[in-house]
Amino acid sequence: MSNVLNEVLLANREYANSFDKGDLPMPPGRRFAILTCMDARLDPAKYAGLSEGDAHVIRNAGGRASDDAIRSLVISYKLLGTREWFVIHHTDCGMETFTNEIMGDLLSSSLKTASVDADGWHDSCEGPGCTDGKYINWLTIKDQAQSVTEDVMRIRNSPLVPSDIPIYGYIYDVKDGKLIEVPEATAAGRA
Amino acid sequence: MSNVLNEVLLANREYANSFDKGDLPMPPGRRFAILTCMDARLDPAKYAGLSEGDAHVIRNAGGRASDDAIRSLVISYKLLGTREWFVIHHTDCGMETFTNEIMGDLLSSSLKTASVDADGWHDSCEGPGCTDGKYINWLTIKDQAQSVTEDVMRIRNSPLVPSDIPIYGYIYDVKDGKLIEVPEATAAGRA
Repeated sequence: MSNVLNEVLLANREYANSFDKGDLPMPPGRRFAILTCMDARLDPAKYAGLSEGDAHVIRNAGGRASDDAIRSLVISYKLLGTREWFVIHHTDCGMETFTNEIMGDLLSSSLKTASVDADGWHDSCEGPGCTDGKYINWLTIKDQAQSVTEDVMRIRNSPLVPSDIPIYGYIYDVKDGKLIEVPEATAAGRA
Repeated sequence: MSNVLNEVLLANREYANSFDKGDLPMPPGRRFAILTCMDARLDPAKYAGLSEGDAHVIRNAGGRASDDAIRSLVISYKLLGTREWFVIHHTDCGMETFTNEIMGDLLSSSLKTASVDADGWHDSCEGPGCTDGKYINWLTIKDQAQSVTEDVMRIRNSPLVPSDIPIYGYIYDVKDGKLIEVPEATAAGRA
């Protein structure tokens, strides 16, 4: 067994041994959701003060408002009753360090059935796991305040998102653990 | 200011006051990533024993291997060096409680420019935030062990995913906090 797997299972056994949260209901008790980055340095439960049962946490590379993040937010609202949302990107994000072109080059070493040209990345395979010939946008970031604002606007403008839910835009600073508001984003996300 | 926003900012101030993780590097120190559900009852840092800086955490509704989750995993591997991945769904998941059809009905009350028919949900708007007339698959779940296995296979079969990375499949039990292996999934995810 790999060391990582072993360590995770040991840590889980310890967590389960003192587990006392078995009766929590499915809907988030504090009725909000956070969309943030997968970055290892971010612990949303710690930086935003969440206990088990409090809030939905959606995470991807960059904390971007992808179609899949919007799918999750809509489910969060419609089925599980969240009524406020946060979009939280962060300083020193890996998504600022590359472009769609660089990603294409990196992937060319592990290609199965795909190609890269001036338009970006194309996947030409068929069947499960394939992206149906679609261009893949890696959703890289040039400027954090701008990406937060863009993402709040993308959520606000989605035809699937109700207009009465406020969306707040913040940047988490990995150097000091602080959340800094992006006022343009919060303004764009007003209900 | 909303109570939730106020509470999050107060909790963040407290976190930042005793913050001592300002020097962590960007790549995950323990070189692994977890894909899991956004469910409020799940705290992956606690259930898998993660400290800030240890591992990437990707979360969406269901912990599904969507294209966006695969985008994040590929970035995690290629740019930030993770070398083992976990797919972790959980018991009593909200994604088991509805179907694409039910979601269509729920959304019909807050439609902007969309329609529902026998094929599912269609969005007929144009511009940012729109899904370009695409059918939206909400990625609901019928059986947890099956969904974990399907998702591990979807990642394994993606042309963007290197064949040398092991993928482990687990179910988190919200009643007792324990991770239970899905052996078929882990077998399918073998490097």
